[in-house]
Amino acid sequence: MLPADLQRALDSKTKPIGSLGRLEQLAAQIATLQDTLQPSMSTCQLIIFGADHGIAAQGVSAYPSEVTRQMILNLLSGGAAANVIANSLDIPVKIVDAGIKGEPIDHPNLINRRIAPGTADFSIGPAMTLDQFRQATEHGTNLFPSPSTHDSKCATSKLSFRAKRSGAEESLGRGYTSTDAVCFGEIGIANTASASMTAHKILDIPLPDLVGPGTGLDDAGIQHKLAVLTRSANRTPTPLDTQTALTQYGGFEIAMMTAAITAAANAKRLVIIDGFIATSAAIAAINSDPTITNALVFSHRSGERGHDAMLKALNAKPILDLDMRLGEGTGALLAWPIIKSATAILNNMATFQSAGVSEKL
Amino acid sequence: MLPADLQRALDSKTKPIGSLGRLEQLAAQIATLQDTLQPSMSTCQLIIFGADHGIAAQGVSAYPSEVTRQMILNLLSGGAAANVIANSLDIPVKIVDAGIKGEPIDHPNLINRRIAPGTADFSIGPAMTLDQFRQATEHGTNLFPSPSTHDSKCATSKLSFRAKRSGAEESLGRGYTSTDAVCFGEIGIANTASASMTAHKILDIPLPDLVGPGTGLDDAGIQHKLAVLTRSANRTPTPLDTQTALTQYGGFEIAMMTAAITAAANAKRLVIIDGFIATSAAIAAINSDPTITNALVFSHRSGERGHDAMLKALNAKPILDLDMRLGEGTGALLAWPIIKSATAILNNMATFQSAGVSEKL
Repeated sequence: MLPADLQRALDSKTKPIGSLGRLEQLAAQIATLQDTLQPSMSTCQLIIFGADHGIAAQGVSAYPSEVTRQMILNLLSGGAAANVIANSLDIPVKIVDAGIKGEPIDHPNLINRRIAPGTADFSIGPAMTLDQFRQATEHGTNLFPSPSTHDSKCATSKLSFRAKRSGAEESLGRGYTSTDAVCFGEIGIANTASASMTAHKILDIPLPDLVGPGTGLDDAGIQHKLAVLTRSANRTPTPLDTQTALTQYGGFEIAMMTAAITAAANAKRLVIIDGFIATSAAIAAINSDPTITNALVFSHRSGERGHDAMLKALNAKPILDLDMRLGEGTGALLAWPIIKSATAILNNMATFQSAGVSEKL
Repeated sequence: MLPADLQRALDSKTKPIGSLGRLEQLAAQIATLQDTLQPSMSTCQLIIFGADHGIAAQGVSAYPSEVTRQMILNLLSGGAAANVIANSLDIPVKIVDAGIKGEPIDHPNLINRRIAPGTADFSIGPAMTLDQFRQATEHGTNLFPSPSTHDSKCATSKLSFRAKRSGAEESLGRGYTSTDAVCFGEIGIANTASASMTAHKILDIPLPDLVGPGTGLDDAGIQHKLAVLTRSANRTPTPLDTQTALTQYGGFEIAMMTAAITAAANAKRLVIIDGFIATSAAIAAINSDPTITNALVFSHRSGERGHDAMLKALNAKPILDLDMRLGEGTGALLAWPIIKSATAILNNMATFQSAGVSEKL
């Protein structure tokens, strides 16, 4: 598909040229990703990764670590914001335990990809071992197996499923490899600290531009968090490569999401990036492989101060700006109907010729 | 329902306080409108009013007047942007002929509310007669009959349907009086000229701040349009009352939409305002009855320069900003999933207590 053919297709639709603004840009991005003037964008899913963070011991969050597990249970029983918004938009939700504190959670709908019961405290030493980082990467990658061929026109039909799954996961079906778009969400008390460090160490964004209230720190709390993170940052040089940044300061959910973003993009899925934490994973993924950027859409500008600094560093223009700062993929979910509608324009609108509408004077 | 109860209900949900940002504001507005902590927001519809404008003879649009009729036919056969986006979002669409040039259109799905085959040229004299304005108002009002009682708790159950309909309209069912929310759209070549005049004459916004390219005028075209509108404005004093402004400079679709906005708001429907033209109708409706404002949400900031001036004058903060400038209700449609999700938060999210989640430290 030539770019000129795509522009001609958009301009032939019964509307003033360019008058659907951002929707036309999204339609063009999706058509280019799928290499067709009739792209498919009918199914979406949300995958939420949960994990705990050793840095929480330094008092960098307004909520106790137990809340990660409690919120995972809330998500499993359908009472969290992500469930409610996803239900409202007919988007299925999958929950992955990437490393929650305490004993493994026994729940039929939980996908167990536990690396360890939380990361280590990165103010003292590396958040995870290299082996743990590799496990997280493998699990994230296996959610979206790469096409067996690089012929993008045939990508969706030639997918082979390589991840090993059994029991609970088998009962969930293989839906999470087969949708046109995917939203990634997260839950993890103290993960704005880890996300701030990831963005700081990879893109050299100053920490004061990144560190904010997270779930609700007051000014003194933010100053304390900034002091802890500044001290932690001084353990290592800046910038760091992706693997070192994530091993030193990442979370299991962030590392797993980074790999899942890369794998989903390589499998030609549209990847809908949520807010502060998901964008830190996108930064890590893009830093390792800039070519995945064409599969990513940034869904919203989070109310968490620092997200705007990340978006600016990526030159990314989010679709929504609703002052949301909840995570769980909630912002990504809300972008889905807009993305779906954008694709429908290319697929279903009449042309000036087909509808017999006069063109511009 | 007390405001404190509403705030307590929102703050009890399993999320950091205020972390759903604009969604929480929307949920609060809807709960207040319906006077319940369990508001209903499951159905929406789009009603598109089409009409022609005598001012088109002055060369103020990039497209010929015939396009109004051609686009109505395109809408009736499902090929326009509004159809495609509405289908993608499962929102039914109704088309109303408020006064299209030429012979009446004979189509089983068209609702005939023709006032005349287009308004008169307002650069010479009034766009419509007082009798025509009253007819447009009556038709718009009858789409949403007022509740027979002012007891808002019972409003939805006590609706009586007063509009006379038959034939084609009867076959469309009575759906357009019964949804929780309603989007109004329009099609009418040269109606940005009429909308600019309406906003100018009612709110005294300077014409140069309002006049833009519409469907695609170049700079010389915009200057010509501004000159025509400035000359037209000089025929009458500024500001004018709502009725005089609409009679002198309005369109049949704008006058009908103004009445429909008022009637829908009085019937406790949430009214989703689209872009430049719909906002001019909202300005007219609010000017006549400021109490309707609590039923209105402004869906998006249009790419048409001048819309921002209208929104600022109303102190309105739109939900979306996607550089769209197509009309037909396309921006209003895209706000619906966000509004629906916002309401679901209040209805369906677990509380900290019900989910056993620890509160802030």
